[in-house]
Amino acid sequence: MKELRTERTTVKRSPSRGKYGREDLFEVLDAAYVCQIGFLHDQIPYVIPTAYGRDNEYIYLHGSTKSRLILNLLSGQVCCINVTLLDGLVLARSVFHHSMNYRSAVIIGKAEELVGEAKMRGLKIITEHILKGRWGESRSPNDKEMKATAVVRIPLQEGSVKVRTGPPKDEKEDYDLDIWAGELPISTEYGKPLADPDGNRTIEIPDSIKKMTDGRHNA
Amino acid sequence: MKELRTERTTVKRSPSRGKYGREDLFEVLDAAYVCQIGFLHDQIPYVIPTAYGRDNEYIYLHGSTKSRLILNLLSGQVCCINVTLLDGLVLARSVFHHSMNYRSAVIIGKAEELVGEAKMRGLKIITEHILKGRWGESRSPNDKEMKATAVVRIPLQEGSVKVRTGPPKDEKEDYDLDIWAGELPISTEYGKPLADPDGNRTIEIPDSIKKMTDGRHNA
Repeated sequence: MKELRTERTTVKRSPSRGKYGREDLFEVLDAAYVCQIGFLHDQIPYVIPTAYGRDNEYIYLHGSTKSRLILNLLSGQVCCINVTLLDGLVLARSVFHHSMNYRSAVIIGKAEELVGEAKMRGLKIITEHILKGRWGESRSPNDKEMKATAVVRIPLQEGSVKVRTGPPKDEKEDYDLDIWAGELPISTEYGKPLADPDGNRTIEIPDSIKKMTDGRHNA
Repeated sequence: MKELRTERTTVKRSPSRGKYGREDLFEVLDAAYVCQIGFLHDQIPYVIPTAYGRDNEYIYLHGSTKSRLILNLLSGQVCCINVTLLDGLVLARSVFHHSMNYRSAVIIGKAEELVGEAKMRGLKIITEHILKGRWGESRSPNDKEMKATAVVRIPLQEGSVKVRTGPPKDEKEDYDLDIWAGELPISTEYGKPLADPDGNRTIEIPDSIKKMTDGRHNA
């Protein structure tokens, strides 16, 4: 499989943290819930958070057919997507070497609108990314809802992954300073599912959620 | 105080979720660690994650003087910053009404480079945002480190905050369906501090970290 690296997606700062394999990218995308998408509108590079899903070598997004994001994506412009997972604070002896442990993916590409069967499949991919098994449990989109929604996909062909792990890297002479240094790990936890107070609260929590809270994701 | 709202930062999708007060913005910025900044380079709206700090009505960023991000910010272009905190998955009865609970801030503005005293103060703001009290505990930046680093600030004058909380909002007729609906809360937790294995591991964990793990942040 071709790697994701191009001149414009090569990691220049801390290049040893750069990775360019498809599997590296998939791992980051599959672990998070929200991506930040950059698109150009009136010469401003807007950044908006949105849900997504991934299947094979595409990332799927959706939105109102009237949204500024969707209208700009469908204009054929090149957009940029970032997904970042924060894994910890890196507390060095020097201010300069303070950092964070993270996994971050950047994708550059053009969106393609999906219609018909492919559109419904795209919505399934996004829904299943939120909660695996949820598509089969929920009421499917009707014609009116399908008309109000646009679904697009962007190929995972050009991008990069940047990962930092481990303790701080201080200057050699600073290791003797009497300053605590190390990592403060950060992780994402699920709370107890809260049943909708406006609905029937006797319905049992589905297996999809029970499996989820075993920890497939760590957003 | 003037509100952050302008035509281009007015929330159009789900407008009732939009907030435009300075305090609303401060709350979101003060609760997170990483922002996503959008900048234009070769007509592509790149999105890059980075650390930040806030003091009064400015957000502070730093980076290598050679980084593409910094060079583009200092070119005088208008950039966009997003900070998003994910608070939960919203599981509706219908696929269409699935959503997330979140707090998201968008800022639009131009970066101003800081020099001299103001630059050092900017670094302090960013360091203290990572860990309150850490500036006084760490070895201060030396001349070489200061020369390698650029510090900028962007005024918090134009933007918006978008917040979703609470249970799903389904179509009226769907409330009778035999489908579990509700929220799955997501929160961020700190792990046990890990002392740098390459350093003196007998140094006691500082109060800054002990206070942190009491939960000022929830990133």
